Amino acid sequence: MRFSHRQVVIGFCLLLVWPMWVWGDSSASFRGTGEYGGSWRSDPMHGYWDPLTYPRPESSKVKGVFQGEECLECHATLTPGIVQDWRASRHAQGSHPVFCPSCHGQDHEKLFFPTPETCGRCHPQRLEQVEDEKRYGFPSHALAMERVVDSKHFADKPKAEVAACLQCHSVATKCDSCHTRHRFSAAEARRPEACVTCHSGPPHPDDTSYFASPHGVRYLKEGNGWDWSKPLRRGNYPVPTCAGCHMKDGNHQVADKALWKFGIREINPETAENRIKRNRWVKVCGDCHPSKVINEFFHTLDEERGSAWKKLYTVEKILKNLRSDGLLLPNAADRPLYPMDWLARWFPKERIGFLEGQASAFYNVGALERDYFDLWYFTNTGAYKGMAHGAKKMATRFHGRMVEESHAIVVEADRVRTLGKRAKKSDIKPLWTEGEYTRYNRDHN
Amino acid sequence: MRFSHRQVVIGFCLLLVWPMWVWGDSSASFRGTGEYGGSWRSDPMHGYWDPLTYPRPESSKVKGVFQGEECLECHATLTPGIVQDWRASRHAQGSHPVFCPSCHGQDHEKLFFPTPETCGRCHPQRLEQVEDEKRYGFPSHALAMERVVDSKHFADKPKAEVAACLQCHSVATKCDSCHTRHRFSAAEARRPEACVTCHSGPPHPDDTSYFASPHGVRYLKEGNGWDWSKPLRRGNYPVPTCAGCHMKDGNHQVADKALWKFGIREINPETAENRIKRNRWVKVCGDCHPSKVINEFFHTLDEERGSAWKKLYTVEKILKNLRSDGLLLPNAADRPLYPMDWLARWFPKERIGFLEGQASAFYNVGALERDYFDLWYFTNTGAYKGMAHGAKKMATRFHGRMVEESHAIVVEADRVRTLGKRAKKSDIKPLWTEGEYTRYNRDHN
Amino acid sequence: MRFSHRQVVIGFCLLLVWPMWVWGDSSASFRGTGEYGGSWRSDPMHGYWDPLTYPRPESSKVKGVFQGEECLECHATLTPGIVQDWRASRHAQGSHPVFCPSCHGQDHEKLFFPTPETCGRCHPQRLEQVEDEKRYGFPSHALAMERVVDSKHFADKPKAEVAACLQCHSVATKCDSCHTRHRFSAAEARRPEACVTCHSGPPHPDDTSYFASPHGVRYLKEGNGWDWSKPLRRGNYPVPTCAGCHMKDGNHQVADKALWKFGIREINPETAENRIKRNRWVKVCGDCHPSKVINEFFHTLDEERGSAWKKLYTVEKILKNLRSDGLLLPNAADRPLYPMDWLARWFPKERIGFLEGQASAFYNVGALERDYFDLWYFTNTGAYKGMAHGAKKMATRFHGRMVEESHAIVVEADRVRTLGKRAKKSDIKPLWTEGEYTRYNRDHN
Repeated sequence: MRFSHRQVVIGFCLLLVWPMWVWGDSSASFRGTGEYGGSWRSDPMHGYWDPLTYPRPESSKVKGVFQGEECLECHATLTPGIVQDWRASRHAQGSHPVFCPSCHGQDHEKLFFPTPETCGRCHPQRLEQVEDEKRYGFPSHALAMERVVDSKHFADKPKAEVAACLQCHSVATKCDSCHTRHRFSAAEARRPEACVTCHSGPPHPDDTSYFASPHGVRYLKEGNGWDWSKPLRRGNYPVPTCAGCHMKDGNHQVADKALWKFGIREINPETAENRIKRNRWVKVCGDCHPSKVINEFFHTLDEERGSAWKKLYTVEKILKNLRSDGLLLPNAADRPLYPMDWLARWFPKERIGFLEGQASAFYNVGALERDYFDLWYFTNTGAYKGMAHGAKKMATRFHGRMVEESHAIVVEADRVRTLGKRAKKSDIKPLWTEGEYTRYNRDHN
Repeated sequence: MRFSHRQVVIGFCLLLVWPMWVWGDSSASFRGTGEYGGSWRSDPMHGYWDPLTYPRPESSKVKGVFQGEECLECHATLTPGIVQDWRASRHAQGSHPVFCPSCHGQDHEKLFFPTPETCGRCHPQRLEQVEDEKRYGFPSHALAMERVVDSKHFADKPKAEVAACLQCHSVATKCDSCHTRHRFSAAEARRPEACVTCHSGPPHPDDTSYFASPHGVRYLKEGNGWDWSKPLRRGNYPVPTCAGCHMKDGNHQVADKALWKFGIREINPETAENRIKRNRWVKVCGDCHPSKVINEFFHTLDEERGSAWKKLYTVEKILKNLRSDGLLLPNAADRPLYPMDWLARWFPKERIGFLEGQASAFYNVGALERDYFDLWYFTNTGAYKGMAHGAKKMATRFHGRMVEESHAIVVEADRVRTLGKRAKKSDIKPLWTEGEYTRYNRDHN
Repeated sequence: MRFSHRQVVIGFCLLLVWPMWVWGDSSASFRGTGEYGGSWRSDPMHGYWDPLTYPRPESSKVKGVFQGEECLECHATLTPGIVQDWRASRHAQGSHPVFCPSCHGQDHEKLFFPTPETCGRCHPQRLEQVEDEKRYGFPSHALAMERVVDSKHFADKPKAEVAACLQCHSVATKCDSCHTRHRFSAAEARRPEACVTCHSGPPHPDDTSYFASPHGVRYLKEGNGWDWSKPLRRGNYPVPTCAGCHMKDGNHQVADKALWKFGIREINPETAENRIKRNRWVKVCGDCHPSKVINEFFHTLDEERGSAWKKLYTVEKILKNLRSDGLLLPNAADRPLYPMDWLARWFPKERIGFLEGQASAFYNVGALERDYFDLWYFTNTGAYKGMAHGAKKMATRFHGRMVEESHAIVVEADRVRTLGKRAKKSDIKPLWTEGEYTRYNRDHN
């Protein structure tokens, strides 16, 4: 264990200012939440994405208490877009419209953003279904916000980058992720586009896999002519859409058929719980397909997953061997530290990105680990989504990419081994080491 | 020629069990078809994709012979989706509807899937047009299934991966690739989405190239408002779609204007046959464009192809030089064998992936060959499709990528040469060598 | 300074034939325009993209002078597609239709293509707005054609490749880039697809970023049902589209709110001019959003840009250090020359691609420079567009890629340094060096 004079001095100073830094900020922002909440503070946008945790009073220079149509008198001119949306919504219909104050409050100096609980006052069953997802653990819509703030890189990276995470993960903390304010249309939320706002691109290319499937293609051809005001019941739509299968009958508990966890973890599809889940799938698909074909389909999916994990383990073994030999560079002592890991500066230990969990894999890793991470988190999940959504061509293509990326890792690993001793002495380091990047973050939060 | 003790023993045993392995399987699956058919067996899904070759009696516990509306009495409840589709189809109209048994048989214990011949009984001209493609050779819709099963990697890879090939290549063996069962709509099949189910992504990005062209952009803007029940005749649609040009007047012979073979092979556009084909194009484009501009367009396409092949040959030469010097690793003896290549274990010879044809190029190659393969099969074809469909920006971009990928190969080839002797002794091997991957396949087929 | 015998001889001959080569061509094509115009000649397609600069008389065997309906008598049969489009256009309505000769001339032996000035005779305000963009410099629609012909690689590369540049850059020289001939519909041009014909893919993924944003998603869901004949005024559309924000009220001056120059250059958003521009944005967004949230949004955008430039400068420094040490290969003397750089053959100097400007960066660079170029021009701009259009997920993803690509450059730079001396003596050269590629161009122009 060696540490420089500079490290000792900086460490000592940090210990002194630490408490000040965490609790000393008197601005309107809040202390972060979650495991690393002590290391970051919310910025104003957080109150927009998670209004319950970071309440954000929309203080306004306009004073007064308003009710019913009164709000609209000004806002029809000030913000005509949202007023028009509300007028077209079901909230504006009937003899008892749901006016602005029901969700935002009446006192114009203390307006607030609504939370799922606000919506749940009138839609208790939907709120209950969403909340019920929590018992299945992550991935889950209801736990999405908790999850994101619990990751080290969220706490550590510039907020301008990771605040973006909140755009999707706020599905847990507000309802207009799917039902765009101020129309709050169920018809809108039934369309695949409502889902693919978030469920697109790696690591969950639900958009490309669905739209490339026979189901999705038919939606693309005819979907604009369907009557989306119909509920998602059996026989109401010619082919299934995202919500048609995953939220059948409008059920907002989306996790009770989910087995494979995005393809990120290897699972046993034959556990008692998973067999129950799969039978739910067989029932859903049975609206159009005979059960024999459905079961063959799932058998093929299991085979595909087996093939994918075989590939992943082959590569993981290569990396673990490199690591055993001290060649998975940079070594622990050379890695950039997360702010809350300051102790590790004096007591470094091998904490290899993806092998110790997903959290730090986006950031705090070397080149080879990142290659493996991409293979696992992006390419592998593309193969899974392709097969699961019936876009088999996509599955085949992503398996091809897995072979290709695996080859590249083998070649690179061999090179690292060949150059091993020399490389150890060379300058290969991650960028933004020694806190440069993290300091930037602290300065700009 | 050296081979280990272990190789001799395994080889001898393989020779003994070989016949058993190929013909000994008494399950319901069939011996494979095509050149390597002896090395694989169909799985149940094959009967779904190619019902003529792998007939798949849909044995059911329900006994009885059913006619006309009788099938619908149960299936309206059991599988309402497909019954609704049929009711909306032309098959259900008129005084003599085409009921389920016409395509699936009457005996519920011996139901079958329809083949193109089944459809051809009522639509003989369309079947004839499809079949007529065969005289132009591959690429061809009518030969698509033959082609896929004739490739080594199809025979060799895990069926869960390559069964996916059948999803598109079954266009040769069933008609609902374009006319989704059980609606079988012509209007649906006229839309570009019907084609891009298969014609999307590398090596034939027909989707991105068409949708990025002025034609495709206008389709995206207005297409949902067009009357798709109109035949694909001159003047019926404001801009051409896939089928509007390639299947004008509904002609199901799609190959009689095809010159460039996806851009994969260099061709001479000035042969007598190709001049006839091109004149057919000039006539199609002439609905809107003056012939002078059309010819200039084709001249630019020829120039583009010339420029692409110049690039490809430059890189191919680099690889061939490496190969002459024994540096295109892994060498023949180190490559994983396809099952039917067991003889090569004792008599290895240089069989370099792409240089000996496309078939094995997805799989049994080293890193540099794969890079070339990607350049040729993916990037080059993107440039071609971009130019051919009038998405010139795409052509320019893919030519830029060709330069970029060529540079990378040059740099890597230089490195291989520099490290040559050492690398030969090192551990760089393809993954899944020594039959591990193929054994996995055998176990899981 | 050393140069071979061969260089001297070739150079001397070039000096003699140079004037002949440039001015000696007596074909119908024109001398190129712009800084390097002396080095290339237009091909016939140029007259199609830029009819004012390269006038292209559409000589026809049909003689005669035609007026009004007379043209249609033949063309309704010859080219029915464009006649139908014209009939559906506003030009065909009313008591004084705008017939073909108004834009193409009356003398069938001297027909011409219309220019923006042709359209401006009836639509002077729109032409004026387009022209007004010029005072903001590039990027600008009005300067797009000037810009493209002023780049070295346009002058030098095979015309079949770079003529494609003209497809988008001709937005400056003809009006049907957005208003497809011969319908010239305003409704069509209001839709996002009109813009994404050009504004798609790197370096300006306006398509993916808009369609991934909450605005774009709602357009995808509902847009086909909107009444696009309405002007782009406040409250006429539920969510903004490209033109809804960038061309509000139909203003064809698109540059007067543009601050960030595609994210390619670092700018100071707090200059007096930029504060004026940003206030224009705040006003546009204010149709739906409170100004407080809008300002927070722009603050986040500024933060994102700061974070991106920090990454770019970190990597640029690495390359500059390599360059100082003579390790940014190939060195100046080994680079392929542009035709107009023949002097540099005898007096080579370090002209490193991207560091001396964008123009040559597509082509005349080594592998590491290209990696940096991709990072800057493609990945960085993706991050910018994602954040600017409210597709925050995309911004996060592209920042992740920036980190990844930066890592790769660091590793590669270290390797170049380690192998430094040996590599200098090796064969690593760009392809198409020594004028091979450019000679090909000269032969095929």
